[in-house]
Amino acid sequence: MKKIHEISVKNYKSDGFIKKYQELVHNVMIPYQYKVLKDEIDGVEKSGAIENFINAGKALRGEEHGSFYGMVFQDSDVAKWIEAAAYSVSVFQDKELEDKIDEVIDLVANAQDRDGYLDTRFTISQKERRWQNLLEAHELYCAGHMMEAACAYYEATGKRKLLDVAEKNAEHIYRHFITDKAEGYPGHPEIELALMKVYAVTGNKHCLELAKHFIDCRGVDPHYYEKEIKARDWYIWGNNPSDYAYQQSDTPLKRLYDAKGHAVRAGYLYSGMKDVATETDDKELSEACKRLWNSITQKRMYITGGIGSTCHGEAFSTDYDLPSDTVYAETCASIALMMFAERMLADEINGEYGDVMETAFYNTVLSGIQTDGKEFFYVNPLEAVPGISEVAQTQRHVRLTRFGWHACACCPPNAARLIASIGKYAYGEKDDTVFCNLYAAGEVSFKNGMKLYCKTEYPYSGEIRYKIEGNGNIAMRIPAWSKKYKAAKNGCELSVYNNNGYIIISAQNGDEITLTLDISPRYVYASEKVPALSGKASICAGPLVYCFEGVDNNDDVLSLRFDTNSLPHLNEYDEKLLCGTRTLTVSGFKREAQNSLYSDSVPALLKTDIHGIPYSLWANRGKNQMRVWLPVK
Amino acid sequence: MKKIHEISVKNYKSDGFIKKYQELVHNVMIPYQYKVLKDEIDGVEKSGAIENFINAGKALRGEEHGSFYGMVFQDSDVAKWIEAAAYSVSVFQDKELEDKIDEVIDLVANAQDRDGYLDTRFTISQKERRWQNLLEAHELYCAGHMMEAACAYYEATGKRKLLDVAEKNAEHIYRHFITDKAEGYPGHPEIELALMKVYAVTGNKHCLELAKHFIDCRGVDPHYYEKEIKARDWYIWGNNPSDYAYQQSDTPLKRLYDAKGHAVRAGYLYSGMKDVATETDDKELSEACKRLWNSITQKRMYITGGIGSTCHGEAFSTDYDLPSDTVYAETCASIALMMFAERMLADEINGEYGDVMETAFYNTVLSGIQTDGKEFFYVNPLEAVPGISEVAQTQRHVRLTRFGWHACACCPPNAARLIASIGKYAYGEKDDTVFCNLYAAGEVSFKNGMKLYCKTEYPYSGEIRYKIEGNGNIAMRIPAWSKKYKAAKNGCELSVYNNNGYIIISAQNGDEITLTLDISPRYVYASEKVPALSGKASICAGPLVYCFEGVDNNDDVLSLRFDTNSLPHLNEYDEKLLCGTRTLTVSGFKREAQNSLYSDSVPALLKTDIHGIPYSLWANRGKNQMRVWLPVK
Repeated sequence: MKKIHEISVKNYKSDGFIKKYQELVHNVMIPYQYKVLKDEIDGVEKSGAIENFINAGKALRGEEHGSFYGMVFQDSDVAKWIEAAAYSVSVFQDKELEDKIDEVIDLVANAQDRDGYLDTRFTISQKERRWQNLLEAHELYCAGHMMEAACAYYEATGKRKLLDVAEKNAEHIYRHFITDKAEGYPGHPEIELALMKVYAVTGNKHCLELAKHFIDCRGVDPHYYEKEIKARDWYIWGNNPSDYAYQQSDTPLKRLYDAKGHAVRAGYLYSGMKDVATETDDKELSEACKRLWNSITQKRMYITGGIGSTCHGEAFSTDYDLPSDTVYAETCASIALMMFAERMLADEINGEYGDVMETAFYNTVLSGIQTDGKEFFYVNPLEAVPGISEVAQTQRHVRLTRFGWHACACCPPNAARLIASIGKYAYGEKDDTVFCNLYAAGEVSFKNGMKLYCKTEYPYSGEIRYKIEGNGNIAMRIPAWSKKYKAAKNGCELSVYNNNGYIIISAQNGDEITLTLDISPRYVYASEKVPALSGKASICAGPLVYCFEGVDNNDDVLSLRFDTNSLPHLNEYDEKLLCGTRTLTVSGFKREAQNSLYSDSVPALLKTDIHGIPYSLWANRGKNQMRVWLPVK
Repeated sequence: MKKIHEISVKNYKSDGFIKKYQELVHNVMIPYQYKVLKDEIDGVEKSGAIENFINAGKALRGEEHGSFYGMVFQDSDVAKWIEAAAYSVSVFQDKELEDKIDEVIDLVANAQDRDGYLDTRFTISQKERRWQNLLEAHELYCAGHMMEAACAYYEATGKRKLLDVAEKNAEHIYRHFITDKAEGYPGHPEIELALMKVYAVTGNKHCLELAKHFIDCRGVDPHYYEKEIKARDWYIWGNNPSDYAYQQSDTPLKRLYDAKGHAVRAGYLYSGMKDVATETDDKELSEACKRLWNSITQKRMYITGGIGSTCHGEAFSTDYDLPSDTVYAETCASIALMMFAERMLADEINGEYGDVMETAFYNTVLSGIQTDGKEFFYVNPLEAVPGISEVAQTQRHVRLTRFGWHACACCPPNAARLIASIGKYAYGEKDDTVFCNLYAAGEVSFKNGMKLYCKTEYPYSGEIRYKIEGNGNIAMRIPAWSKKYKAAKNGCELSVYNNNGYIIISAQNGDEITLTLDISPRYVYASEKVPALSGKASICAGPLVYCFEGVDNNDDVLSLRFDTNSLPHLNEYDEKLLCGTRTLTVSGFKREAQNSLYSDSVPALLKTDIHGIPYSLWANRGKNQMRVWLPVK
C-alpha cells in the first residue's frame, strides 16, 4: 500500500518558477511538437508520426496507403505528445488543445487492429512480424507510452476513448504473453509502469498481472534474446542480444545489486519494479529497488542528478566513474530517475527521494531545454570546452549548444510531459495529511478536502508560504542541503521534529504556514573515490547546481580556481538575464597563462571574481567553456 | 645534408642504466621472442610467423605446404626480431645469436619470389591478390620492416644476404609503383623511412626515388583507397577508406599542419618525410615536418612523451585533449616519436629534439616493459584506478598490469629494437664534432677517430664524466629542465655558451670533461588549456617523470594532494627495489574520506608523506592505483 498518493495533475495550478516552465511547455513546446509530428514545420527533419497512424488506419480498412516512416518507435512520439498535451489541458483548461488531442486520438483508435494490436510499424505492413522482435521492435514500449497517454487524458478530461484503446491493447498483450504463454520480455522496458497506471485507473487486474509477469520473468532466462534472434530471419539495427547488462537481462530483477545498462531503460524498469513491489507488497522486489536506488545515488549519479555516465550504450558505467567531459547523462534518464524517486517515496516517506527528484529536475531535466523551448540537450555534460567537446572522438556526442528537433526525439516530449505533470511529483496525500515534496508555487486541491495556496520564489528564495484551507496535517520535506530551517504557523515559530527529512505540522482552516530554508550558496565536494573530481569543488544554492561559463568569465573558465575560504554570494534576481535568474559571484583565483605545454614555473594565481549561473541555463548564449567543478586552490 | 650523422650501433658499448636494459633485451626478450616466433613456448598464443616463411618457401618451390597463419602483418614480427637481434649482435658480439639470425634469414630469402616480391601472406596463397589492398594488406609495411632489419644486420655483420633480398624487394616495388605506374600509397606508412635506410647503406637511387614518390603522392588523391576498394572484391577487416585523417590521406603531406590519425603510422610517416626532406633539401617538406613536430610537442603530447591520446583509432585527438585515464599513448607511438625526433635533430641542432627523445624513452618506452622483460604495455595511462580502468567502457583498453606476448605483438619487438639500437639516438658526429644527445654510459667510437668513455649513473645522477681519446669537439645537449648546469675540463670549470640547447667544448686526447646537470626533483605544471590537468601538478627529476602508486601510498592515491611549498626529495638509490631505482618522497596532504558521494563538509587535509617511483616502473607490483598528476592543495 502506498504511503503517499500522488495528486491529480489537474488539481495543481502552478505559479512562479514552475508556471514559467509550464507555460513554455504549453505555449511553445506542445504546439511546436504538434506541428513537427504532422510534418508542418519547414527545415525540421520529417517525423511522419501522425501520418503513420493515418496510414495504419487505411491499411486496416484495406485502403491504399503510404508506407511506414521513421524509427521503429515513432509511435511513441505521438503518445508522449498526447500525454504532455493532456497534462497541459489539465493545467490550462485549453479547449482548443483538447480538440486537437481528440483528433489525434481518433487517428490512433482507427489504427488499432480488431484484436487490440496497436503499432503502426507492423500494421501498415509486415503484420506477420508482430511480436517476433522484442529485442528491437519497441512494440511494448510504444504500447506503454500510449497507455500512459490514455491515463493522462482520461484524468484530464474524463474521456474514455483512448483509455479503451489502451485497455484493449493491454488485453491483446495479455492474451499473447499470459494466455498464449509467449516467451520474452520488453526490449525497452516502459510498459511495466504504464500497465500499473492503467491498473490504477481501471482496476483491470490483467494489467497488474501482466506488469508483474514482465518483471518476474525478466533475466530468468538471460538467453531469451539470443533464442529470439535465431527464430527470425530479420533484424532492425542488429542489437547484440548477448549484451545482457545493457538489455537488463543478465539476472532476475530481484537479484540486481548494481544499476547498469542503458540508463533510461533502467530508470523506467526500476520504476515499474517499484510499482509492482508496492502494489503486491513484494518485499524481495522492494529490497532490490532499494539496492538499485542506493547504487545510483551513492555511487553512479552526477551532482546534477544526471545518470548514465558513458556514451557507450547511453549507460551506467561502474562505481565512481563520473567524468564531467565524456559524460552522457541523458535528459530522459534524469526524468526516469525522477519517476523512480517518486515511486520510492510513495512507499517510504524519506526526504532523500525528494532531494534527488528535485536535483534531477532543477538541473539535468531543465538543462535539456533552451530558454526559448525550441532546442534541446540529450547529453548534459558538466564540462564543455570548445575545440574538444564535439570534436574529440571521446566527446563527439557532447554538444556545446542544444539541438533543434531531430529524428530520434525522445527527450523533448519527455521533458514536456514531465514539466506539465510536475504537480504529481510536488504534492501528494494520505488520509488527512498532505505532502509537499517539492516546493511549487500555486494552488493545490486534495481529495481530503484540503487546499494549499503556496507562495514562493523557490528555487531563488528559501521562503515558502502556505495558506491552508480545511483541516489536517501538512508534511514538508526538509532538503538535506538546508542545514538550518525555520517553520512558523501564523507568525509563531514552531519547534518541529525532522523525521527522515519531513516535518509534519497540523493545520486548521485559515492557517498560514511559513517554511524558511537556507539557500545560501555552499561548496560541495565529491567523494575521494571519484577520480574525475579529485581536488575540485562545485557550488550549489538550494537545489540549484551552479556552473561557470566563459561568457561570464572572460572566455576562460579553465584557468579559474576556487578559494574555498571565500563565501559565494547570490546576486539579486535579474529578470532580464536568461529569462530571469539569480547569478552567483565568488572571489577566487585565475591562474596566469603559460606559454608551453609543460613548465616548471609555478603559475601565479591572481585574485579574481568568478561568476556563476544555474547549471540548467548554460549554453543559452552560444558556444563557450563551461564547468560545474572547479579546482580548489 | 645532415648536420649530425648517427653512429653505427656497434660503435657503442653500453654501461650502467642503458646496459641493464640492453642486457634485458639480449638475455630475455630476444631469446623469448625467438621462441615465440617459432611457436616453442607453451601457453603463449600461436605466432606462426617463422612457419609462414617456411610455408612460403615451400609454396614457391611447388611443395606441399601449410596455410598462412596470423595477422596480415605477421611477417613484420620476424623482421622486427631480426632487427633487434642484429643490434644486439652489434652490441654483444653474440655468435650464437648471429647463427640463429642467419637461419631465419635463409628462411626469409627462400620465401622471396623470383620477381623480388616478399610477403608470406600472398606467397603461400592468393598470389593474384598482391598489391590489390594497400589499405589493409600491410605488404609495404612488412617490406619496410624487413628492409630495416636488413640494414641493421648488414651494419652488425657486414653480411649482405638479407640486404640483397631487401634491395631486390625494393626494386620489385619500384617497378610496380614507378615503372609500371601503379597508383596508391602505403596503408600503414613505414617503408618510406626504411627505403631511406637502404638508400643510405647501398646508395641505390631507386630507393630514394620510391620513398620520395610515396611521400609526394600521399593525400594528393584522398580518394585513392575508395577507388581501391571498388576495384577488388575482398577485404580483411573492412577498414573505412573514407576516414582520411586516420589514413593520413586527407591532404598532401606538404600541407599538413596538425598531427593526426593513427599515432604510430603518423610517427613513421613523419620520420620518412623528414628523411626525404633532409636528403633532397626539400624546404617545403621540411617546414611541414616542423609544423607537425610543433603540433605534437606543443599541443598533443603527454608529459611522459606519450602520443595518440585516444583509443579511437589509437590516434591523435585534438589540441590539448590529453586525458590521463582514457588515454592510449601506445608504446610504439613513443618509439616512432623518438625516430622522428632523431631525424629532426639530424637536420637542426636543437636541444628540444633530444629533450623529447629522452622523455619518450625514459618514460613511455621503458614503461612498456615489465622489469622481467616478459610482459608489455601497449597502452600507457597516466592514471589507473582498479575498478574503473579495465572495467569502464571508456577505459576497457587501459590495463592495470602488463600483457604477456599476444597475437598483435607490435610493441614488444619494437621496444627491443629501440633499446638495442639506443646508441644511434644517444651519439652522433659531424666532421670533428661528436654529439652527446642522450647521456648513455659506456664506450663510443666515432668515424672521425675520437672515442668517448662515458661514466654516469644517469638518469639517477646528473653527473656525467667523459674521458676523451683523440682531438675534436664534444657537443653536449643541455636539457631544458636543467636550469643550472656546470661543465668542467680536467677539473676546471668552463664558461660555456648554450646554443639552442647544446654546449660545445673542444677536447684533446686524454681530456676529462664533466657535465653536471641538475636533476633535483621539480614540480611541473600543464598549460591551462589542458582541461584534464587543471589544478594539478606532477613531479619530474631529470628526464624521469615520477608517479604515485597505491602500493607505496597506503592503497589510496586518489586522496593525495601536493603541497607545492614543500620540496620533493630524491631518496638514495635502492638496488633491491624494482631492479634498482631512486624513489622520491614529498610532504603533502591526504584528504580525509567522505561517507557520501557529495557533501558540503570541507574535507580535512592531513599532512602526509607522498612516495613516488619513476613512471616507467609502475605496475610491477600488481594492480593498484597510480597517478602521475596530483591535485595541488
